[in-house]
Amino acid sequence: MNFLEKFQSICRFKNSHVCVGLDVDVTLIPPFLKHEKDPMYEFSKAIIDTTSEFAAAFKINTAFFEEQGSKGWQSLEKIVAYLPDNVLKIADAKRSDIGNTSKMYAKAFLKTLPFNAITVNPYLGLDALAPFLCETDKGIFILCLTSNQGAHDFQYLQSGNKFIYEIVAEKVVGWNKNNNCGLVVGATHPAEIRKIRDIAPKLPFLIPGIGAQGGDLAMSLKFTFATSEDPAIFNSSRAIIYASAQKDFAEVAGIKAKHLRDEINNILLDTFPLEQE
Amino acid sequence: MNFLEKFQSICRFKNSHVCVGLDVDVTLIPPFLKHEKDPMYEFSKAIIDTTSEFAAAFKINTAFFEEQGSKGWQSLEKIVAYLPDNVLKIADAKRSDIGNTSKMYAKAFLKTLPFNAITVNPYLGLDALAPFLCETDKGIFILCLTSNQGAHDFQYLQSGNKFIYEIVAEKVVGWNKNNNCGLVVGATHPAEIRKIRDIAPKLPFLIPGIGAQGGDLAMSLKFTFATSEDPAIFNSSRAIIYASAQKDFAEVAGIKAKHLRDEINNILLDTFPLEQE
Repeated sequence: MNFLEKFQSICRFKNSHVCVGLDVDVTLIPPFLKHEKDPMYEFSKAIIDTTSEFAAAFKINTAFFEEQGSKGWQSLEKIVAYLPDNVLKIADAKRSDIGNTSKMYAKAFLKTLPFNAITVNPYLGLDALAPFLCETDKGIFILCLTSNQGAHDFQYLQSGNKFIYEIVAEKVVGWNKNNNCGLVVGATHPAEIRKIRDIAPKLPFLIPGIGAQGGDLAMSLKFTFATSEDPAIFNSSRAIIYASAQKDFAEVAGIKAKHLRDEINNILLDTFPLEQE
Repeated sequence: MNFLEKFQSICRFKNSHVCVGLDVDVTLIPPFLKHEKDPMYEFSKAIIDTTSEFAAAFKINTAFFEEQGSKGWQSLEKIVAYLPDNVLKIADAKRSDIGNTSKMYAKAFLKTLPFNAITVNPYLGLDALAPFLCETDKGIFILCLTSNQGAHDFQYLQSGNKFIYEIVAEKVVGWNKNNNCGLVVGATHPAEIRKIRDIAPKLPFLIPGIGAQGGDLAMSLKFTFATSEDPAIFNSSRAIIYASAQKDFAEVAGIKAKHLRDEINNILLDTFPLEQE
């Protein structure tokens, strides 16, 4: 089963397009967990327990663990190992470097750590991504159009009659020999999502930017899905995992994850009523 | 003292433009070190001891440590701590993410780990780099034109009458409010180095790609230095640290580092004979 098939079968089996983002900020972990030996792990474990029923994917943001040094990396190792089998396990690492070094990054996240997908940065071009792309059963999500203001600095530059982000999408379609490429497209740019979906009808989209960043869920959904079967997941981090800082934090996170799953599914049902009958 | 001043004073004091790249590949460490408790650390320590006299900077490639998991990250922590004070300590991490996450990466490398410089990727634009740029006494080396073939995929795209790498250089000049920005420019593109130096006459250049990657040292030097005082360092990794796999590996690394320092200084002396009298 290639990555695209795995992606689609998980979304179908879980009936979910939700990606829960584990941006585990030690300063935001509920105070009563801070006495635990490994608060980052205990917090994540509880969140995983209550949200995984509603999630197609978990996206672990490596920066938050690196900020804690080797201790944080140990927590990261334990958390990835704890993730259940029936979800996509995405390292949100945004790596890339020249060939030799990219090989090490690919090993670090797709072998040493048992993630089955990773986010990568396209700026260094194909040979920098090749060591990831040749991991045929893993998903490689290439940054295309990011959700932040800074996307305008380079991603919106025009080359010929195309924006750089469109050229990235086109190139990635060409690089997708193993059906294991995906694109990161921010929900804060719904109109551009349609253009990118036209360029890359078969690529899984990882869509951050809903929730705290203010991206429009309904609009992004409408443009992400040309058909109800299109591969896509929507990430929410802070709005789920920090919804409560009380004893009920995990329970509330579960409710928020379920709510997001249902909200997405309901919009899809409204958008494609005939297909769903 | 701002980063630019620190950069220049170290190069002057050490009379060196050499950056030693610690791409510590466990499979290439001399076999007799593999019985040590922490071979990556013992290897690096020995290399640092023999090369630091000739080096203005050490650049530690994080990928090689991440590939070893939390154990590797522990080695990384020990190695950074071991670096002497009179060199630049560069985390070759090529990070960048949206604001909140970039803040964590900046902390991870410039606070939790005591590096005084880091390499970052420009694709996500200014707000993604801001948490690094506001570390006023640290150096932020932004990827401009990389030494690999894949540089042609996006960095050489034209927008208006400029290449993307030229636009990156221009933007970075504008972002350099704290005199702490630098550029990564591959030695494999000597002609382009001149164009980038014209755009950014005062920025420190970190130049990889000589040695194993085949960049032309004399040509890159000629175009990097418009005057003999221009800020620049040339990285060599494999050609120094793996020059011998025998008992004399550290000694040979020291000889190679000295040789590179002298080679660079001699070319500079030939290029700017009057200034040096």
